[in-house]
This record gives sequence, C-alpha cells and structure tokens, in this order.
Amino acid sequence: MTKPGRKSGGNTKPRNAFYAQSGGVTAVINASAAGVIETARKYPRHIGKLYAGRHGIIGALTEDLIDVGQESNATIRGLRHTPAGAFGSARFKLKGLEQNRAEYERLIEVFKAHDIGYFFYNGGNDSMDTALKVSQIGEAMGYPITCVGVPKTVDNDLPLTDCCPGFGSVAKYVAVSTREAALDVASMARTSTKIFVLEVMGRHAGWIAAAGGLAARKSGEAPQIILFPEIAFDKAAFMARVKASVETQGYCVIVVSEGTRYPDGKFLAEAGTRDAFGHAQLGGVGPVVANMVREELGYKYHWAVADYLQRSARHIASKVDVEQAYAVGKAAVEYAVQGRNAVMPAIIRKSARPYRWKIEPVPLSAVANVEKTVPRNFITADGFGITAACRRYLEPLIAGEDYPPYVDGLPDYVRIKGKPVRRKLKSTFKV
Amino acid sequence: MTKPGRKSGGNTKPRNAFYAQSGGVTAVINASAAGVIETARKYPRHIGKLYAGRHGIIGALTEDLIDVGQESNATIRGLRHTPAGAFGSARFKLKGLEQNRAEYERLIEVFKAHDIGYFFYNGGNDSMDTALKVSQIGEAMGYPITCVGVPKTVDNDLPLTDCCPGFGSVAKYVAVSTREAALDVASMARTSTKIFVLEVMGRHAGWIAAAGGLAARKSGEAPQIILFPEIAFDKAAFMARVKASVETQGYCVIVVSEGTRYPDGKFLAEAGTRDAFGHAQLGGVGPVVANMVREELGYKYHWAVADYLQRSARHIASKVDVEQAYAVGKAAVEYAVQGRNAVMPAIIRKSARPYRWKIEPVPLSAVANVEKTVPRNFITADGFGITAACRRYLEPLIAGEDYPPYVDGLPDYVRIKGKPVRRKLKSTFKV
Repeated sequence: MTKPGRKSGGNTKPRNAFYAQSGGVTAVINASAAGVIETARKYPRHIGKLYAGRHGIIGALTEDLIDVGQESNATIRGLRHTPAGAFGSARFKLKGLEQNRAEYERLIEVFKAHDIGYFFYNGGNDSMDTALKVSQIGEAMGYPITCVGVPKTVDNDLPLTDCCPGFGSVAKYVAVSTREAALDVASMARTSTKIFVLEVMGRHAGWIAAAGGLAARKSGEAPQIILFPEIAFDKAAFMARVKASVETQGYCVIVVSEGTRYPDGKFLAEAGTRDAFGHAQLGGVGPVVANMVREELGYKYHWAVADYLQRSARHIASKVDVEQAYAVGKAAVEYAVQGRNAVMPAIIRKSARPYRWKIEPVPLSAVANVEKTVPRNFITADGFGITAACRRYLEPLIAGEDYPPYVDGLPDYVRIKGKPVRRKLKSTFKV
Repeated sequence: MTKPGRKSGGNTKPRNAFYAQSGGVTAVINASAAGVIETARKYPRHIGKLYAGRHGIIGALTEDLIDVGQESNATIRGLRHTPAGAFGSARFKLKGLEQNRAEYERLIEVFKAHDIGYFFYNGGNDSMDTALKVSQIGEAMGYPITCVGVPKTVDNDLPLTDCCPGFGSVAKYVAVSTREAALDVASMARTSTKIFVLEVMGRHAGWIAAAGGLAARKSGEAPQIILFPEIAFDKAAFMARVKASVETQGYCVIVVSEGTRYPDGKFLAEAGTRDAFGHAQLGGVGPVVANMVREELGYKYHWAVADYLQRSARHIASKVDVEQAYAVGKAAVEYAVQGRNAVMPAIIRKSARPYRWKIEPVPLSAVANVEKTVPRNFITADGFGITAACRRYLEPLIAGEDYPPYVDGLPDYVRIKGKPVRRKLKSTFKV
C-alpha cells in the first residue's frame, strides 16, 4: 500500500491532491466534489493543496489545473446544490497501459511537478478503470500516489455498490415527469392524444427506464409500457399491449430507453426507420416508437425526449442521492488519508424499509469495466413493467426532496472562479 | 344582463352550475377548478349543485356530467397542487352559430334539463369564443345563463390580461431546465457535446421560448440563441451566431419554439397532420435544428423535446401562477353571482417591482379569438434574444415555488371520484 504522506522527522509532510470529474455529468456530481473538498480541508496534515483538472483528466494531461483553494467555503457549500460538472468534465478514456503508456507517463510527470500524492477520479466504469491504471503505473514508476475512485453515473451500472450517485436524482426526475405527463395525456385522450412516449437515457442498462415505473401507484396505472435495453423488442406484443391499453384505459404511456433493441441487436433508433415526420433518422427512439404506433394503430401521439434535462435536473434531486453523493466524496478522502489505494467507496444497503446504508471500500479492480444491468427478476414476465422486487429496490433511492435555494424564481447555482495553477512544466501535451 | 338566480317570494332560488376544462391542459388549471369549486360552495343561495363536464364541453353535449358535490373538501384542496385536467379536457371547438346551431341548442337542452344557470369555461382563445356564443344563444333562446370564461393557456396569448394562468409555470420550467442543461453542456463541451437544443411549445406566440432567456443572469450566458415564431428564421445569421458562440464560449444553447418558421411561413418542422382545431400538429423542430447545425458546422449535439413535460410540471410550478390560477377561478364565480355575464377575469398588473396585481372583468367579446404575440421590443434587434423590457415583464411570473406534497419520493397528486350525474334526457348526441 502506498504511503499517503511521507514522514519527515516525526511529522507528516502533506502532499497535494488532484480531483477530476469524468464522463457524462449528473445532478449531484458536484455534491461529491463538495464532499471531497470539504473533507480534504479537514486534513491539512495529510493534504496540502487541492487541485482540480479543468475538464477532467484533460486538465491533468495538459497541466491545466484549477486551484480549488481559491474557492470560498460558500462556493464549495453551493456545489452541493449545483448540477453538472463545475470543474468541467471530459469524455476521454485513457487507453490501456500497453497501447498508450505516454498518457500515463505524462500524468505522472504532471503529478510529480505539482507533488500530487492523491488522485480522486469521479466517474463511471471507464473512470474506475483509469484510476486503477494510474495507481498501477504510479507503483511501476516508483511514484507513490494514492488513487481513489468516486462513483458517479446516471446509468446506475457500477457493480458492488447499491446504486450510483446521480442515478437516484434522474430516477426521481423520470418518475415525477412520467406521473405528470400521464395525467396530461389522460386529460386529453378523449378527443386528442392517446399515446405519450417518453424517451430516457440508458444505452445498455434499463435502470432509468425502470424508474419510470415508479410513477404508477398500483398495477394498471401509467406507464403502461416500459421498453428496456435488456429485453429484445417484440413489436407484435408491444402493439397488442398499446391497443389493449387504449381500449381499456383510453390512453397509453410508454417509457422507452434509448438503448432498446430489436432481437437482432440493432437499436430501434438506428434501424433505418424514418422519424415521426418522415425525415431521415436524426437519433431519438421516442419519435421512432411514436411513429410506429401511429402507422400501425393510427393513434394520435405526443413524445418527449428528456435528454440532458433528466440528468441535470437538480431542482428535483433525490435527497438520498445528494446525501450519498456527498458521502462517497467524503469517504474517498478519508480512505486516501488512511492510505487505502485503488479503492472506491461503495454504498452498502443495510435495510430496504427503512432504507439504511453505509459506505465501504471496494477494490477498483473489482469495479472497473463491469456493467450491472437490470436483472430479469426486476422486469415483469411480459417484459413491459417492473416487479415488486424492482420497486422495493428503487423506491428508497428517490426518497426525499433537497431543493436548491432560489433567487428571482430560479435556482441559485454557483460557479467556481476556476483560477488556474501556475504551470511548472515547459513541455506540452496534445490530447 | 342575465339574472343569475330567479327570485321567488323574496328568496333567491339557487340554480346549478357547469364547469369544464378545455384545450391543452396546464400545471395549474386544476388550481382554477379549485378556485371555482371552493368559491361556489360559499354561495349556496345562488349556486345549487356544481357539475363538471367529463372531458370538457363533450361532457355537456353528451350529458356526461360529473357531480362535483361528491368530491371531498380534501380532494378539491388537492386540486390546487395537481397538474393536468382532473375532470378531463377536450380539443373540441364548437363551430359558429350559423354553421352548427344544433350543438348550441343541444347544450341549452342539457343545461335546461339540469337547471344550469352558470357556465364556467376554463380555456384559451377558442374557449372564450365558445363561452361568448353560449351566452348569446342562451339569450336568443330565452334561456337565462350566465357565462364566465376562466383564462388558461400555456401559450400566454390571451389579450387584456397581464398573463395567462398556466404560462408562469411552464415559463419557470423552461427557464430552470435551460439553466440546468446549459451547465451540463458547458461541462461536456471540451471533448463532446457543443450544441444543445431545447424545443419548447408555442405555436404562434414565442412567450415560452422567451422564458428560456430568463436562464441567463447576464448577457452572453446561455441560452445564446432563442428562435421565436415571431421572427422569420434566417439560417445564415443563425449559423454565424452558433459558430461565434462555440468559438468564444465553447458551446451554444439554443431554445427553439415549435412554431419557428422560414421567411415563406413554413414551419421548420411540420408533422403534416392537423389537430381537431385544424391547426398543424407540430413537434420535432428540435432535432431538425440540431441536425442542421451538424450538417453545416459539424458540431456534436444533443437535443431535448420537453413536450407535455413542460406543461404538466407541477413539481416546479410558479407560486405566482398558482395564486393567479386560483384567483381567476374564484373571481369567475364571484362575477357570476353578481350577475356579470359574458366576461372573463383578467389579471391586471399594478406594478412590476414588486409585482402587484389584481383581477378585473373584461368582456369575452374583446378576448375571443384575439392572439397576443411577443412584441418586437421584447426581442433583441438581432432576433435571437430577449430585451430588458421582456425580462421585466417575465420575471415576476416565475417568482416563488409552490411545491406539492410528496409521498414515497413522488408528488401526491389527487384524483377525483368523478361520480356521474344521473342522465335526464332520452336523446343522445354524437360528437
């Protein structure tokens, strides 16, 4: 295990820390940042300065570091209620060590220049893999660095953790929006719209789509149909279900995951179908499904594509999610100062009702590149709904509201100053 | 002026009242219903039973009436925080008196059978026209009926009123969502998405699109571009603005109204289908604009279509909007018992800062079929933003939050029992 602080004369010499946000952002990733930063400030004997990568790992590669010490306590507190990535994120996956050793060596070069002894990487599967590799090359190059992953992904597909910070809030947004839109279409169905399609995120895992199922209080309520990436799309069964729903209830609400596929593995959204208006496909399974229903059954439809709205909707964040996001950031720093390397704080469910949880470290090697999809027993036998077991799992994750403060009718989200750290290296790095 | 209650022996004999919801529903139309119902219950000497049309005016034509008296006080109170049309709405425009006298005569027949002396019609332009015609034929047929319109439309296009109940909440939703999604795309822009397009409602009037402009605290902040139906789409100017925004700020957020048109009057996206009122069914301009940018400039994009989510989003309703929605319902009943016929309660702005308003009656004849679009001086000279005057107008309308109660992480919206009134007529009516 790497030593987090080098002793000298009986005193711990503090080393600096690096924090970065990675991949698609969420409503609560900044709450994790707040957890990291506020906790780091409590360990001045271990952690000296805290730097953040501007736009994630790219900030490290290009030595574009933000001096977090310049941000006020009020700003850091405000991150807890501010969505998206305040320090900038990046979709940039470091390649394998063998394929691109230069990138890792550059990271170590930058870290060495700034005496960075702690690496906190806030992301999903790919990011946990990167954090693991940084810890390995640090060791291989004889540069002591403690790497801790901070979990984040709306996709909720990391293993070993009860859930992923960011998911609870998007789940709440989708459940609330589905319940609201369902009331709307029910009002209109007599003379107008009978079909409402809501497209949600989740390319490989249907967790977000599943959350739409929470909108129903009891069986038969909207959404009448959920389309999961885990279940091959059966058009005939789908149409029969739509028809039955309209005939018995007057309308049909459909929540469709962007990752829904035909039995041959092709996404519905890229299957060469025209969109709802006969235009060449622009991306968007929502309009594709809506148009399919109109062509087959002739019903008038509306569709919505929530896209970024769902994952940035801090205004309707889950309180549990905010608390967990903060807690994993806090735990990451605590693990680091304890000298735990190559771990990730995971959320462990102690009980479902009431929901009780704790944070425990799991090895990054067990997390990296493993994808947790919705298990079959969470999906009803017909493939169109969620089971009681799924509901039991999901319900605690959307519990509680954690409203941001408002000014002039709008959420008062903070912005960082983002003061850059003076560069120390002459060399540059092209990403 | 029609007498609302017929005197007999010095006592007022109460007559029954009819209430219906019409057209596209909103987050607060049920708050108006609550205002009507709770106020009607305070005038037992004037108003006997209160019936609601199931699915709007269709409920009257088919004698499908809901006995509102069967709904508990708690349910009616709950309507104040429940979105969409609890009694069912309809897109059904009565034709002109000359074209289809039979419909009006049928209404009077049903009203006569149930001794309905008050007609409250909760809707937009078309509905105010219907209320006016009902008052006219009542007079022509010697059947005394007091008709009061209750304004409602997310489009905010009714004249003579400072704003339309329903608009403030969709405006708040769009402003909040734009601010949130803008933070998201700003986080991602370095390596990924540079363009975010949010499509919003507003067929002929750009009020909802304008509300997106509130997301910016100061000039230059997102949204960088708003596309209004009032401004002919200038593709070259638009592309230049997108490019400049990406080059200087790294990204560009675009709020586009579904009603945006080319200089020749053609909608950027037209579905080709028409709704019950003969209006073109729109939706899908978001992906069209996003794709246009990609083709021309090659930027990676995301787009969202809020559709019903925006107008049913009671979870983020404007407190001012909820209060005004309730107030117009309450005033409608007060006008009716005062014997004011063929009027609509309008919201009169007394001052902007602080926002103070009152309710005053305006004649339906002055409201019906008049459309208030965004004035040119509310749109910046380049056609892509809102002016300070526009901001001054809009800001008070999204002020304050009015959160619904939550149970199990979800808003606790009420449902009515919807007990039908026993039919009295043998004849039926096909709509």
